[in-house]
Amino acid sequence: MTVTQRETSHNPTPDSDGPVGVWLNGARGSVATTAITGLLALRAGMADSTGCVTDTGMLRDAPLAEWTDIVVGGHDIVDTPLEKKAESLVDSGVIPAPVLAAVRGSLPAVERDLRTGYDAGTETGPLAEVIDRLAGDIEEFRDRHGLSRVVVINVSSTEPPVEHRPEHDDLDALTRSLADPDERALPASSVVAYAAFRAGCGFVDFTPSTGARLPALEMMAQRERVPFAGSDGKTGETLLRTALAPMFTCRALHVLSWAGVNLLGGGDGATLEDPRNARSKLSSKSGVLPALLGEDVTAPLHIDNVPDLGDHKTAWDHVSFEGFLGVRMSMQLTWSGVDSTLAAPLVLDLARLTAAAHRAGHVGPIEELGFFFKDPIGTDEHALAQQAQVLSTWAGGLNGHSDN
Amino acid sequence: MTVTQRETSHNPTPDSDGPVGVWLNGARGSVATTAITGLLALRAGMADSTGCVTDTGMLRDAPLAEWTDIVVGGHDIVDTPLEKKAESLVDSGVIPAPVLAAVRGSLPAVERDLRTGYDAGTETGPLAEVIDRLAGDIEEFRDRHGLSRVVVINVSSTEPPVEHRPEHDDLDALTRSLADPDERALPASSVVAYAAFRAGCGFVDFTPSTGARLPALEMMAQRERVPFAGSDGKTGETLLRTALAPMFTCRALHVLSWAGVNLLGGGDGATLEDPRNARSKLSSKSGVLPALLGEDVTAPLHIDNVPDLGDHKTAWDHVSFEGFLGVRMSMQLTWSGVDSTLAAPLVLDLARLTAAAHRAGHVGPIEELGFFFKDPIGTDEHALAQQAQVLSTWAGGLNGHSDN
Amino acid sequence: MTVTQRETSHNPTPDSDGPVGVWLNGARGSVATTAITGLLALRAGMADSTGCVTDTGMLRDAPLAEWTDIVVGGHDIVDTPLEKKAESLVDSGVIPAPVLAAVRGSLPAVERDLRTGYDAGTETGPLAEVIDRLAGDIEEFRDRHGLSRVVVINVSSTEPPVEHRPEHDDLDALTRSLADPDERALPASSVVAYAAFRAGCGFVDFTPSTGARLPALEMMAQRERVPFAGSDGKTGETLLRTALAPMFTCRALHVLSWAGVNLLGGGDGATLEDPRNARSKLSSKSGVLPALLGEDVTAPLHIDNVPDLGDHKTAWDHVSFEGFLGVRMSMQLTWSGVDSTLAAPLVLDLARLTAAAHRAGHVGPIEELGFFFKDPIGTDEHALAQQAQVLSTWAGGLNGHSDN
Amino acid sequence: MTVTQRETSHNPTPDSDGPVGVWLNGARGSVATTAITGLLALRAGMADSTGCVTDTGMLRDAPLAEWTDIVVGGHDIVDTPLEKKAESLVDSGVIPAPVLAAVRGSLPAVERDLRTGYDAGTETGPLAEVIDRLAGDIEEFRDRHGLSRVVVINVSSTEPPVEHRPEHDDLDALTRSLADPDERALPASSVVAYAAFRAGCGFVDFTPSTGARLPALEMMAQRERVPFAGSDGKTGETLLRTALAPMFTCRALHVLSWAGVNLLGGGDGATLEDPRNARSKLSSKSGVLPALLGEDVTAPLHIDNVPDLGDHKTAWDHVSFEGFLGVRMSMQLTWSGVDSTLAAPLVLDLARLTAAAHRAGHVGPIEELGFFFKDPIGTDEHALAQQAQVLSTWAGGLNGHSDN
Repeated sequence: MTVTQRETSHNPTPDSDGPVGVWLNGARGSVATTAITGLLALRAGMADSTGCVTDTGMLRDAPLAEWTDIVVGGHDIVDTPLEKKAESLVDSGVIPAPVLAAVRGSLPAVERDLRTGYDAGTETGPLAEVIDRLAGDIEEFRDRHGLSRVVVINVSSTEPPVEHRPEHDDLDALTRSLADPDERALPASSVVAYAAFRAGCGFVDFTPSTGARLPALEMMAQRERVPFAGSDGKTGETLLRTALAPMFTCRALHVLSWAGVNLLGGGDGATLEDPRNARSKLSSKSGVLPALLGEDVTAPLHIDNVPDLGDHKTAWDHVSFEGFLGVRMSMQLTWSGVDSTLAAPLVLDLARLTAAAHRAGHVGPIEELGFFFKDPIGTDEHALAQQAQVLSTWAGGLNGHSDN
Repeated sequence: MTVTQRETSHNPTPDSDGPVGVWLNGARGSVATTAITGLLALRAGMADSTGCVTDTGMLRDAPLAEWTDIVVGGHDIVDTPLEKKAESLVDSGVIPAPVLAAVRGSLPAVERDLRTGYDAGTETGPLAEVIDRLAGDIEEFRDRHGLSRVVVINVSSTEPPVEHRPEHDDLDALTRSLADPDERALPASSVVAYAAFRAGCGFVDFTPSTGARLPALEMMAQRERVPFAGSDGKTGETLLRTALAPMFTCRALHVLSWAGVNLLGGGDGATLEDPRNARSKLSSKSGVLPALLGEDVTAPLHIDNVPDLGDHKTAWDHVSFEGFLGVRMSMQLTWSGVDSTLAAPLVLDLARLTAAAHRAGHVGPIEELGFFFKDPIGTDEHALAQQAQVLSTWAGGLNGHSDN
Repeated sequence: MTVTQRETSHNPTPDSDGPVGVWLNGARGSVATTAITGLLALRAGMADSTGCVTDTGMLRDAPLAEWTDIVVGGHDIVDTPLEKKAESLVDSGVIPAPVLAAVRGSLPAVERDLRTGYDAGTETGPLAEVIDRLAGDIEEFRDRHGLSRVVVINVSSTEPPVEHRPEHDDLDALTRSLADPDERALPASSVVAYAAFRAGCGFVDFTPSTGARLPALEMMAQRERVPFAGSDGKTGETLLRTALAPMFTCRALHVLSWAGVNLLGGGDGATLEDPRNARSKLSSKSGVLPALLGEDVTAPLHIDNVPDLGDHKTAWDHVSFEGFLGVRMSMQLTWSGVDSTLAAPLVLDLARLTAAAHRAGHVGPIEELGFFFKDPIGTDEHALAQQAQVLSTWAGGLNGHSDN
Repeated sequence: MTVTQRETSHNPTPDSDGPVGVWLNGARGSVATTAITGLLALRAGMADSTGCVTDTGMLRDAPLAEWTDIVVGGHDIVDTPLEKKAESLVDSGVIPAPVLAAVRGSLPAVERDLRTGYDAGTETGPLAEVIDRLAGDIEEFRDRHGLSRVVVINVSSTEPPVEHRPEHDDLDALTRSLADPDERALPASSVVAYAAFRAGCGFVDFTPSTGARLPALEMMAQRERVPFAGSDGKTGETLLRTALAPMFTCRALHVLSWAGVNLLGGGDGATLEDPRNARSKLSSKSGVLPALLGEDVTAPLHIDNVPDLGDHKTAWDHVSFEGFLGVRMSMQLTWSGVDSTLAAPLVLDLARLTAAAHRAGHVGPIEELGFFFKDPIGTDEHALAQQAQVLSTWAGGLNGHSDN
């Protein structure tokens, strides 16, 4: 007998209509592997859900799938076995050894739900064919597990910013271009978003890549009646900034400069060492302070690849501000976080919330999920407490909605 | 012709019914002198109101007195001339030299409104007589300037915690005890609160001293139909904590420990070097983290007198927390603030807001002012963003109230 | 066949006269277990000697025992199996799992060389009998392994400061007192030092306890012709201070204050939560700054027990200093170190160096080992670079000495 | 009667042969103005010499000019009056107001000794003529004040690195090229060095510019029998690094990465915002860690222009290191220094020491002054304590030398 991911028969609660899927693009990476391992541990009752917002009182009224009702699959362009990746995350302190030991037996079932992703660096032929393949993989996953719906989440490496093309603004033109084997109208993250929408799935971009953020793709989401969210998970330094910058504002303290530096290693550190990729990340991060503090704040920001730090990211921020009668003061922060540890539970949260939004009939960008993102789609609100309020109210209200 | 504090004739706006007074207990101290100098600069249009919450959009709907409609007086037990104190604050970087130069000519008028305070260390005789004298000073100040109302704000040195006495729970028993020359039923801060209430004034305790926080004094405020607020202005490390601790909570991150150390010099540093006084301050500060994070957080806290730092307080906090799958992470903060600079504009804010509450008929503790305090009277809400929301809504609503 | 600690036949080099022993008092504690595990790994060639000063170029001329020529035993008053303690140190990140895996098979041999120590809290009877027993254990260890000499190193928990007694100044009086079953003339650390000297061994106090620092014990060392060293291994914040304070001095910058706070958990954190024990540690640490910077430096210092940090000690230092024309500046340091990781290699270094000194005929306090200690016996030199120079010169010169 | 810089008749001590001059290139800049103001205060006994190494015990045996025997002049390409510049430094907290008040009357005399410098951006004609003019200014200064010798110190803005030209290796070729009005064989700092040597003066480069660091200029110094020193004064982050990196080395701790960021405003911040200028500074700073820790250390380094910080430079360093058994630990530093305050006393020190070296017959690079520099000429020794030792020994030995 094959052990499947869900071993118990589905017993829908009034709030649910069956198990849901989360499909991870970049499923063999650090964030995904941590999310998968953690989900298995949560399903098995072997770990508590520290770090998962959806299990807090703030979202107690939201109609969310149980951990035991979530099935995971995904795409990746590398073929590192999940188990091997998980072991490396044990070595680097991201996954505790007992957690891996407890769920190791369940990894092969997930492994069987992983498929080869789209490698923009090597694949030729029309993107339309790539999209057919990716969407087919997702649909087949949904059918195989009898899932009510699937949320596709991009957790692959950050891409450079995309250059504008006319097709980005016109879904028909885009679709025509995708059929042309000589055109590459979309970056990989957007190919994935397109495939997700084609398969009738919600899409979340946890990275600063382009993903669904093109007018043509937003039209596609509207046409397919699916929600999407993003972008760039807010996990460390930016999270702190969106908690702290409002403190200065509400106390009428005038922030003059907010300088930052991020040290990180691991795959993320290596990816961001390429200035083209760093540009996406820096751009995603750099909107936050002007939105919260005004355009005149001086805000130099660096990301350095420091391989020995691995997934243990260290960020230092220096804030210089002016108080009563123009007197100068300052504040410093050092954040020592484990990036995948911070990101993985949010990925699971976003899967639950986007599935609930999809079920409730939400179509297009979900700006109420701005709480999770550095560069939230559809809103300029960056203040964390306000975002939490918006999220809580919205998610509580999903109960009343209906997708019928 | 004698130059008075208000040189223009009073021209009440629809939101106002005449000039208001702020009476500072500890008027020759650093916070008071900074507030006085700053108020004179604001009245003269020589400084902007950075650091004053009441001039931000958050309180735009509140019916507040104009800066030009605020008159200041106060008590102190030392006799350092205001001007000399202001000069020492120039030397220590709290008041910019040009600001003092601009308002120096207006200081003598304030000086003429200062009176000798109650010195618990030397004065004998019944406290009732002290209270008569203090209340008389305040009433005479109100009459002299034709003020619609006066707010008394305690900014004197921190006292040790008071020991409970039965009179503290019974206003009549307290009043009898005050008449007894051999009894000292109240600490100085509470004598001031009693006198304020007697004079029909609102009272604010900006320090962690006992002030109005005794049942008998609350009864007195109810009887005299006056509001009061406190206690212990939230200006630095605690302000940060109330902005940051909710970030951990709303992200389901489990804070294990939050250690802190405060280095400061000046009068405050010297006062808090006495462990009895430090006890009040530490107690006032130490309620915040358990309220926000739960009782199991380890939270050692120190206050050290480092004379060379003067008014430039430096606080370091170290937060250790647990994320997904039990992984440990940490955060550090260093706050380098100028205490009087941070406190003074809040004192002015509290004068305006308490006067508006008084006018609107608010009686007893104003829990909606919790935003300003480390140990807010009447509420357990410590989260800064929530406090700001409560404040904004309440202050906006004062418009509709009436004191008739 | 029983596996012994040294499996190869002894092949003395010209610099050596046989294997040496290190006898750890507190052998089942974190520092000792890390040192033991590490020594086994070094002997097996499974680890490099990062953190061991004796393997650096600075001491290349010193006639030191090879790692393979060092045998370890010890006393403890608890009976936690070494292997179990080592496993707990794996869990807390002090010993890497592969290192324990590599040496696990060698731990039982060390376990067989551990004996029950002196428990001052429970043992009755004359201390002379305790000393007989302890010295006997050490001599038997030396004989059993055919060791040329043994160095006894105290790595047990910090004791409170001892109160002076007349016997402390007079070896004969002390010896008489030890025979009295009703007298407790020495704290445990000094009982151990006495036993070490009695057994003809050098003694090192790696803790701030009293150890050999009593005139009567120094006489004893002289009489027995053995060396001793101490006290209180310099591993973290104090190490930094002795590297940095001389920077200010040599640049003529005037340090006004140097405040510090230490956060730590583990056994050390719990021990130091008792103010009596903390007094020894604070006293040991607090001599450094006045010696380096002058008596007028303000230097508040705290040690807090923060259990969640375990062995991961975090220290924050804030330095305020004055430069040209009296301008104020500041510096902050945060040290995040693993105490046992920092201490263990120094324990091995001290074993090698004290054995070499013993062999070279050094008698009494070895002030040239001040490099290793917060409170170096026999010298006021605290500047790290100067201490390194003294150590290097002295150790290089041991070659020429002779114990014949 | 004109007030001159030295009002008392010269009374040579046995260690001296008359007053000496210091000629500052960039005399109207922040460092120079602070040095000039400070020197005047020292000469007048109005300030103590905190920050001046030459007044410490370390250099007590060196035959140095008295403060009252030092006369100052210089070149600059801007014409801001010294007094105005000094006032701006009062505003920014570099010069205390009472110090300026005390020496204001002496500034005009210095002002009269300032001349127009060489502006590489606008001046045409052969550099030989520029050199004639600059050398003439210096000689005339020496004659006018009857100075035994003059030390020229470059404290002007950092230049970009120079591109190699064949003339840089050949003094005759260089001299020919300088006569050609169409050639610009030397950057401004090297023109100044050439002029200094031509005038028979020692030269110090306190900046990372090229200065005397060209083989042809070293030949020139040899030919003119003058000493020179440099480069790039070690005042903040790099000073700390050279004090701390040796700590790790001597404790056999393996530094994996040492990341740094520098935030500064003022003229220096603006100059270094140009990446070409920053290249010189980063290159000068970046040799230190590999020399002290080995080539494999990861050491990203940034310099950010944060205008609001002015002269108050803040640097953050994060050090990640490996200890016993490969365990990872870390350290962080924040340095908040006032650049001109740190630099100015070293400029005065270098004037005294270079004058003494010149008098003692030292010719060519003075590698013993490496203590003062980020990128010391003629030596790879960066460890601060070793540099201090070398300096002290060398300076003490200048007594016995002779320039006859």
